[in-house]
Amino acid sequence: MSGYGEFDIIREFFSRPGHDDNVVLGIGDDAALLAVPTGEVLVVTTDTLVTGCHFPENALAYDIGWKSLAVNLSDLAAMGAKARWVTLAITLPDNDADFLREFTHGFFSLADQNGVRLVGGDTTRGPLSITVTAMGTVPVAQALRRDGARPGDDLYVSGTLGDAGLGLRLTLEQWPDAIEPQNQAIALERLNRPQPRLALGLALRDLATACMDVSDGLAQDLSHLLRASQVGAELNLDALPLSPALQAIDPAFATIFALTSGDDYELLFTAPVHARDAIARLPIPCQRIGCITEAHGLIFQRDGHPVDMPVAGYTHF
Amino acid sequence: MSGYGEFDIIREFFSRPGHDDNVVLGIGDDAALLAVPTGEVLVVTTDTLVTGCHFPENALAYDIGWKSLAVNLSDLAAMGAKARWVTLAITLPDNDADFLREFTHGFFSLADQNGVRLVGGDTTRGPLSITVTAMGTVPVAQALRRDGARPGDDLYVSGTLGDAGLGLRLTLEQWPDAIEPQNQAIALERLNRPQPRLALGLALRDLATACMDVSDGLAQDLSHLLRASQVGAELNLDALPLSPALQAIDPAFATIFALTSGDDYELLFTAPVHARDAIARLPIPCQRIGCITEAHGLIFQRDGHPVDMPVAGYTHF
Repeated sequence: MSGYGEFDIIREFFSRPGHDDNVVLGIGDDAALLAVPTGEVLVVTTDTLVTGCHFPENALAYDIGWKSLAVNLSDLAAMGAKARWVTLAITLPDNDADFLREFTHGFFSLADQNGVRLVGGDTTRGPLSITVTAMGTVPVAQALRRDGARPGDDLYVSGTLGDAGLGLRLTLEQWPDAIEPQNQAIALERLNRPQPRLALGLALRDLATACMDVSDGLAQDLSHLLRASQVGAELNLDALPLSPALQAIDPAFATIFALTSGDDYELLFTAPVHARDAIARLPIPCQRIGCITEAHGLIFQRDGHPVDMPVAGYTHF
Repeated sequence: MSGYGEFDIIREFFSRPGHDDNVVLGIGDDAALLAVPTGEVLVVTTDTLVTGCHFPENALAYDIGWKSLAVNLSDLAAMGAKARWVTLAITLPDNDADFLREFTHGFFSLADQNGVRLVGGDTTRGPLSITVTAMGTVPVAQALRRDGARPGDDLYVSGTLGDAGLGLRLTLEQWPDAIEPQNQAIALERLNRPQPRLALGLALRDLATACMDVSDGLAQDLSHLLRASQVGAELNLDALPLSPALQAIDPAFATIFALTSGDDYELLFTAPVHARDAIARLPIPCQRIGCITEAHGLIFQRDGHPVDMPVAGYTHF
C-alpha cells in the first residue's frame, strides 16, 4: 500500500488514547518531557532487532512488534524497574500499511498489558530494523544489579529454559525428529512472544541480591553475573527447569538448549537462604538451580558431582 | 578486520573514562541508572540514520558518528534541555574495527564537547544503521515547546539556512556550476558535521515562547510550529540568513534551499518584541525573519509584499 507520509504514519499507527500523569509532553514535539517520580532514578535500556539476525525473514509483523518491545522490557524487569515509557525507531523498506498495522498491534498489545506508553519515535526507509529504548523507574536503593551476589546466596532462574532455542530450530527446520504439535506451540510461543518478567522484577526488589535477564543463554549470562559480583557458582544441571517441550526431547540436547540457547528472557537472580520461603510464594515459579561460591568460576554438577560441559553462550559477532 | 566479539567492541570502542554524578550505573548491566535533578523533567528523543537515506554510501565514518549524535542533540537543544546522556544502537555489516574507531572518534568528539555520556547501547549485525536516543533535563516550566507562539511575537532563526542542502547537492554531484572551494567547504561542513545549538537552547529558556529545530526545511518545520501554536506567520524572504556559500549562488536557488532543504539543525523560535535586545546579545547570531499572526497560514513576503512560493519541506516517505 502507498500514500502514507511520515506524519500520516505517526497519526494513524502510533498515536494512542490514554493518559499518564508522568508524561508532561508526548509524541509531537522535538522531544518528550517525562516526570521521574521523586526518590526514584531513571532506568534506560536499548536493543535493536534486525531481520535475518533476530527474527526470520518470514516472521509475523505482530510477533516482530511484540518481541522488539519484550526484549527491552525484559531488561527493565531485570533491574527491578517499573516499566513506563518507550521510544520506537523503525526502519522499513516501504510504507506498508498492512505490516505497520500488525506490527503496532503486537507492539501495543504488550505495551498495554504493562502500562507502557510510547513517547517518541522515528520512521525511516531502509532494510527492516527496529530499535526500542525502554525507560522505567526504581528507587535507587532497590535497583537490582548484577554485582550484588554474595557467597552462600542461592541461585535461581524463573520459568523454564531453552524453549525459544528449540523454537528457533523448528523455525529454521533444523530439528530432525518429530515433535508433538502442542510442544511445537510451546517452543514457538516462547520464541516469538516472550513475556518480560516485569511483575517478578518488582517482587524481587526486596528479595534478590543480584539479577539479570537470560537473553544470550544461561551459561554465558551467568558468567557475566559472576564476573560483575566477583564470585563463582555451582550450577546443578539436574535442577534446570524444563518445559514439557524440552522434557520430550533427548535429555542431552535439552540440557544444552537450557544452558546455551538465547531468547529465554527469564530472570536469573541470587538471594540469601532466608528468602527461600518468600521466593517459593512468588506468582512466577522460580527454580533454585545452584549456589554462589567464594571461589571464582562456574562449576557444573550432576548427581552432586562436577561434570564438564563444553558450552558457551550466543555472541552476536 | 576480524576477531572482535560484541563485548570486545563495547570494551574497546565504547568504554570511556570520566565521571558523571548523575550516572548511578552506566554501561555493563541490563540497563543504566540515571538521576534526574530534583525539579527537572527528563527530555527524550530518538533518531535513526540509515545509509543511502541520511548519508551517502561513501560518507566518512567520523562524520556518520558525529551526525548521528548531532541530530539528536539538536532536538534536545530545541527543547531548552541540558544534554546529559545517550544510548547508541549500531547495526554493522561486519565488525570493522577501522570503521568503529573512526565512527566512535566522531561520536565522542561531539559528545565530549557537550558533556554528554554514553550510558547504553547495542551492537548488531546487518545493513549499516544507527539509532541514538538522547536524554537531557530541563525545569518543566522552562521547556521550549512548539505550541507557545503568540500573535505579535517575532520569528527568529539561528545561524544560516540552506548550506547543508547545497552540500548534499555537491555530494550527489547534482550541482551544475562551479563553486569556490571555500564555499564548498562551508556547505559540506554544515552537511556532515552539524553543530547542535545546545548553548543557544539553554539561553532561550527565558526568552523564547516556542522553539523547534530546523531539520526538514524551514517552510515545513515552521508549518508544524504554527499548527501546534494555532497561529500563522508572515515570513520575510529578504531576511533569510545566508552564508557566503549561499550568497554566491543564484538568489532564487538560494531562497529555495533556505526554505526547503533539510539538515540545517538551526533553531527556529518565537519571542516577544521586548526580548529583541536580549536576543541581539546572544553568542549565536539569530536573525529576525518575520512575525506571528493571529490569522492562520504562512505568508511569504518580499519587499514588504506577499509572494507565492511553490515550496514544501522534505518528507521521509
